Amino acid sequence: MDHVARLRRLQGALSEAKLDFLLVTHLPNIRYLAGFTGSAAALLIAEDDATLFTDGRYITQAKEEVTNARIVIGTKSPAVAAAESVAAWRKRSGARNLSLGIEPESLSAGARDRLASLLRGKARMRSAPPLVERARMVKDQDEIRLIRNAIELGAGLFRVALEKIRPGVGEVEVAAAMEYEARSKGAEGMSFSTIIAAGARSAVVHGRASSARIPRRGFVVCDFGVILRGYCSDRTRTVHVGKPSQDARALYAAVLEAQLTAIAAVQPGVTAEEVDEAARSVLRKAKLARYFTHSTGHGLGLEIHEAPRLAAGQAQKLEAGMVITIEPGAYVPGRWGVRIEDVVVVTESGCEVLTPADKELVVIQS
Amino acid sequence: MDHVARLRRLQGALSEAKLDFLLVTHLPNIRYLAGFTGSAAALLIAEDDATLFTDGRYITQAKEEVTNARIVIGTKSPAVAAAESVAAWRKRSGARNLSLGIEPESLSAGARDRLASLLRGKARMRSAPPLVERARMVKDQDEIRLIRNAIELGAGLFRVALEKIRPGVGEVEVAAAMEYEARSKGAEGMSFSTIIAAGARSAVVHGRASSARIPRRGFVVCDFGVILRGYCSDRTRTVHVGKPSQDARALYAAVLEAQLTAIAAVQPGVTAEEVDEAARSVLRKAKLARYFTHSTGHGLGLEIHEAPRLAAGQAQKLEAGMVITIEPGAYVPGRWGVRIEDVVVVTESGCEVLTPADKELVVIQS
Repeated sequence: MDHVARLRRLQGALSEAKLDFLLVTHLPNIRYLAGFTGSAAALLIAEDDATLFTDGRYITQAKEEVTNARIVIGTKSPAVAAAESVAAWRKRSGARNLSLGIEPESLSAGARDRLASLLRGKARMRSAPPLVERARMVKDQDEIRLIRNAIELGAGLFRVALEKIRPGVGEVEVAAAMEYEARSKGAEGMSFSTIIAAGARSAVVHGRASSARIPRRGFVVCDFGVILRGYCSDRTRTVHVGKPSQDARALYAAVLEAQLTAIAAVQPGVTAEEVDEAARSVLRKAKLARYFTHSTGHGLGLEIHEAPRLAAGQAQKLEAGMVITIEPGAYVPGRWGVRIEDVVVVTESGCEVLTPADKELVVIQS
Repeated sequence: MDHVARLRRLQGALSEAKLDFLLVTHLPNIRYLAGFTGSAAALLIAEDDATLFTDGRYITQAKEEVTNARIVIGTKSPAVAAAESVAAWRKRSGARNLSLGIEPESLSAGARDRLASLLRGKARMRSAPPLVERARMVKDQDEIRLIRNAIELGAGLFRVALEKIRPGVGEVEVAAAMEYEARSKGAEGMSFSTIIAAGARSAVVHGRASSARIPRRGFVVCDFGVILRGYCSDRTRTVHVGKPSQDARALYAAVLEAQLTAIAAVQPGVTAEEVDEAARSVLRKAKLARYFTHSTGHGLGLEIHEAPRLAAGQAQKLEAGMVITIEPGAYVPGRWGVRIEDVVVVTESGCEVLTPADKELVVIQS
């Protein structure tokens, strides 16, 4: 990981943002910039300096992981320790009118109050623009490799699901077998609560695997992802147990067409909302638009949900190196639902689908 | 669950806190007061009213789960929707000098800014004291029953660990088998990343199961918990692979004595720091105090870490119904470590240990 280059690029953006310091408190941002994977940290960045604040649990780990920032071990909250060091530096240097940017979405209101009272009269604290999130939208080669690895591990989980899904089996048994496979193959964990939603539950968009049993006939939505060396995978396949009706086949075909159409729309310069609209227009023609109740996709990387968001009103243009999901669905409440999701990386000329391309409807005999 | 009584008690505390409204944004607090388990919500409470704000994904679920608050489904952030409803209510009622309490540790600085700009000139927003957290410290009978159930399920995981732990087996293989057992028996997930720390890694306090293999001889710290129907379990046992040396036995015995001494100190009226000191003084006599680098325990319930915290400087008095962990340890860097942890419930006369009491050193032949 080229943490040195990432941090330098960010340092180069501070003056344009009119910031003397940026206090990074969002842990995935800290990991992105400095490689630290502990659960308590703050990274204080100046144009020519960077310091990681953490606590005694992480003495050894911080030294091993972080090479491009000084490390300060303390007993206070890392953000408070960072603010105190800004105050101390100001006293030593005699600098005036210091500005400290914070990440307003990852610092609690209470923590900001504590920092504000520490820095009163010493530095002007204000909400910084999402500088790190913007940088993270475009993945570098190391990141794309790690996402590929996570997706490859995730692919094995779907094979386990196909073996497990049978009428009478509990949704949670399917999830447990998939999660065991993930852990056994080295995943740190799942990137979100595994969704196994069978029969009428397939209409529940966030149908976490429950104690419900798979019926003799119906769709089963499988939406799952792993975390491997920090990076997430995310994939949805919908299979059918028992012989699908013509209506079921038609629903599946419409969602698949929407998904393929959206993938075909992905290229640099296209906006996020245009990709969303590509999927939505197919479902509109099939009179299914009102059953497509979520956005078409999202960025993923160190987090399962990152920028950009592929939804109406999102004017963000796609760029080569962005890694996004394409996951339209249609859900008829109380009856059934289908979702199909791949991860794609935007290339110079379009996109490459990273997820294995097995999207014909799988029918499991009951 | 007696959500009605819990909410009423909180409503009764609003006027003393000089609040017309409390905006609850911490999801475990919302679950505690109104039973809602979705991942996006805000609960707006007035003395004689309560409204849950959530989004379209949770229409059905909110109706099923929430009986003591009105439900408003929207497309905006739940907290923003709640603030808008306060503004609208003020306009209708003509009320003046409204005060709205927020939960400062569970609302981001950015979200508070958005609410403040919405409510400017309409209501005074301020940080509320931790009213719900205080109520949650003392568990009711329903909660104690659910915690017992989670602990019982967790007990089965240690049996799996004992079967799996052998020289040459990867730490993560042990964790994977335990997590499979948890999911198969109905747990929603683990209450934290499973810790399996073998050999010299037993000295790493937060030694998440890694790809490292269990050596032919040494301690293995197993710290794990499940979430069952929302409630957490938490348990640590340290076993020894191969014949333990006299030094190893002495270390284990000292930690066990510290743990039993702390348990004996638990009763209503005793402060959290006194229990911590009870454990620490035993380790001090054994010249191990400097290797005991964390606090003695914490509350648990809907969250794995809740109030009170059993550490120096914590003057909180214990009360009957509090559920806490007692988990002293000693960690010699680079060499080895031992931790022993039970969950106890404070009773009128002392405490009851909820964790199965198998704390003699288990030796696994190599």
